[in-house]
Amino acid sequence: MKKRILENSPTRGEVLAKLFAVWQAPVRTEFVSTKDAIGRVLAADAVSLIDDPVVRASKMDGVAVKSEAFKAGIPDASAWALGRDYVRADTGDDFDDAFDAVIAVEEVEFLAGGGLRFLPDTEPVTSGTNVLGTGEKITRGLRLAPKGTRLLAADLTAIAMGAVSEIEVYRRPKAVFIPTGSELTPLGQIPARGQTVCSNTVLAEHLLAEMGAEPLIYPIVRDDPGALRDALAQAAAEADVILFSGGTSKGAEDYTHALLAERGELICHGIASAPGRPLALALMDGKPVVNLAGPPIACFCGLDWCVRAIIDSFFELSPRKRHTVSARLAESIGSPPNFELYIRLSLEKTADGYTARPLSHFGGSPADSMRAEGLYITKLIPEPTEAGDVIEVELMR
Amino acid sequence: MKKRILENSPTRGEVLAKLFAVWQAPVRTEFVSTKDAIGRVLAADAVSLIDDPVVRASKMDGVAVKSEAFKAGIPDASAWALGRDYVRADTGDDFDDAFDAVIAVEEVEFLAGGGLRFLPDTEPVTSGTNVLGTGEKITRGLRLAPKGTRLLAADLTAIAMGAVSEIEVYRRPKAVFIPTGSELTPLGQIPARGQTVCSNTVLAEHLLAEMGAEPLIYPIVRDDPGALRDALAQAAAEADVILFSGGTSKGAEDYTHALLAERGELICHGIASAPGRPLALALMDGKPVVNLAGPPIACFCGLDWCVRAIIDSFFELSPRKRHTVSARLAESIGSPPNFELYIRLSLEKTADGYTARPLSHFGGSPADSMRAEGLYITKLIPEPTEAGDVIEVELMR
Repeated sequence: MKKRILENSPTRGEVLAKLFAVWQAPVRTEFVSTKDAIGRVLAADAVSLIDDPVVRASKMDGVAVKSEAFKAGIPDASAWALGRDYVRADTGDDFDDAFDAVIAVEEVEFLAGGGLRFLPDTEPVTSGTNVLGTGEKITRGLRLAPKGTRLLAADLTAIAMGAVSEIEVYRRPKAVFIPTGSELTPLGQIPARGQTVCSNTVLAEHLLAEMGAEPLIYPIVRDDPGALRDALAQAAAEADVILFSGGTSKGAEDYTHALLAERGELICHGIASAPGRPLALALMDGKPVVNLAGPPIACFCGLDWCVRAIIDSFFELSPRKRHTVSARLAESIGSPPNFELYIRLSLEKTADGYTARPLSHFGGSPADSMRAEGLYITKLIPEPTEAGDVIEVELMR
Repeated sequence: MKKRILENSPTRGEVLAKLFAVWQAPVRTEFVSTKDAIGRVLAADAVSLIDDPVVRASKMDGVAVKSEAFKAGIPDASAWALGRDYVRADTGDDFDDAFDAVIAVEEVEFLAGGGLRFLPDTEPVTSGTNVLGTGEKITRGLRLAPKGTRLLAADLTAIAMGAVSEIEVYRRPKAVFIPTGSELTPLGQIPARGQTVCSNTVLAEHLLAEMGAEPLIYPIVRDDPGALRDALAQAAAEADVILFSGGTSKGAEDYTHALLAERGELICHGIASAPGRPLALALMDGKPVVNLAGPPIACFCGLDWCVRAIIDSFFELSPRKRHTVSARLAESIGSPPNFELYIRLSLEKTADGYTARPLSHFGGSPADSMRAEGLYITKLIPEPTEAGDVIEVELMR
């Protein structure tokens, strides 16, 4: 099958090395509101604008007192007056400079005349007891989150704690996705004989958004050189990255990769990794163009290793690794061929740990395989992996 | 500190059990477009509407032939005619019923007159060679994703593969979040002496959205019983769940929990888990109302265990567990008190595995602690956890 094209094709790593040797993503940043920056990537350290507390804050709900009144032990406070000898100071409260220590409300009895009685187990009181001083929570200039952080809710909260309401983030690259194939019907229509539903647009839209790109999903383009050329021209005018699915192989109507070779500089056509072996990558007017294979799992693979690395490079990041678990293989996956194989797995947790079972996309439904819990990529070293072997499985869900 | 209120306070599990004994989330579903359903939860199995292939599909780019011509081995096809003896059939293509097998394009030489020559290593051809029959990828009625699935890109793609363009999901509960405290300034203003930035709104908005709720974030409410009462009345009119932050403790201006006790049925005030011990939970007009403690880390804890469980119950789900890693503690966390302690940790990967270091929110900055990579919750069993002990750390990033 497709022996001639794909023999001696480069590995995923070789393809990316070749791309990044001739192309680098432009560094473009913008300022956005902290509260809306979820999922964005910080382009500069976020640094606190304030000291917190600004001056001081009580560590607890209580009363602020003058510590000198406690020099000889717990005083008789029955004749104390609110405002003169003490004030209320609850958690986080600042209070007048005349006072310098806080006693927890649980240690205090409030007397009818305004005086106080401290309980016998009241802790010793000295200047600063139960009081946070200037900047003891956050110092002005403290790094709240470093450049390169993919911003989660916790990061935005930490940044807000330092009163930073605008932050510098990388711009989201615009990724145009063009599904191609005369056999495709849009989701919402029932496919007739010879047709199949275009599901790659759903996959691409959400994976691209998750990566931090701005997805621009084009309508289906038929296998027609003119229509493909028009779509490519439109994409070139608005995209930072252009993605096609379908038309990359050796079919009579596989025009896309030929178009890329004609319009751009072809970096690879065919990779040592499957599904998705016929992937083509080109540079056109200084923009990466990826021709992903059409089948949904193959399209996923190309998005996962190739497009993800391209999008991450706009953020000056390397792709994240997924969390993994060790799992025992339930079935042999045999000797891998001379290319990497994305093996999608179901995972079952038992008393002995995880058991992983390959969801072959040849045997089972590709719909099941698409939803796999686990992923294992075989090594290029031709070492058989047998039932009972323990492998590290990437967690997909 | 706050001994009297909090002694013998219930555990997190006891609080939730008490809530769910008297309250159940209403089950409300709606139909939404598959492509827009990211993050939603399926309220019914999604089932394929189609067979794929509808009739048949070539497994590869090639030519469709009549297998009977191959009964006696590879035929002389030099006089074959396109349309009569063979047709082009690329990956996924259907073709006329006159043909019943596909030969890969790599095995075929196309002759000038329209005939073919098959390469000597062409595999044996019988009826169905390299052809997928009706429903061999997806059968009509196949379950594409089960009820209760939190929909990821892969799930939506699998559902689209079965031509399902609308799916039944649970409605998103509306969660009103009301930040309270006269000391709070909104993000965008630099706090003056005695003030602090309201960062809990940023935290709540994004965590609630991540949980699948629709967050409605109210402006800051001062510590004023009338203003709190008005906010609660407005929330009651539009929310499924009402959340306050601040005002839950024993401060002179902590009106919120008192208001809950007055307007609703108090389920707890004070829990055996810190930070966030003064959390209060009530039912008001059949709706859960949670009064979270004001400090951001305490607010996070309450959102994480209590609000998450409430939101998940609208989807008939139990809260997910986070992935964990085994890590060696770099410092003692000593004997836990008689309540659970959320210990936030930094994680370092070394040759020997992970090392975890507590980011005390008493010592270090709460901004660092907010962004912790790891979380460990101490057990109620008073067993000291010392430096060098191996613990299971929840991964937060």
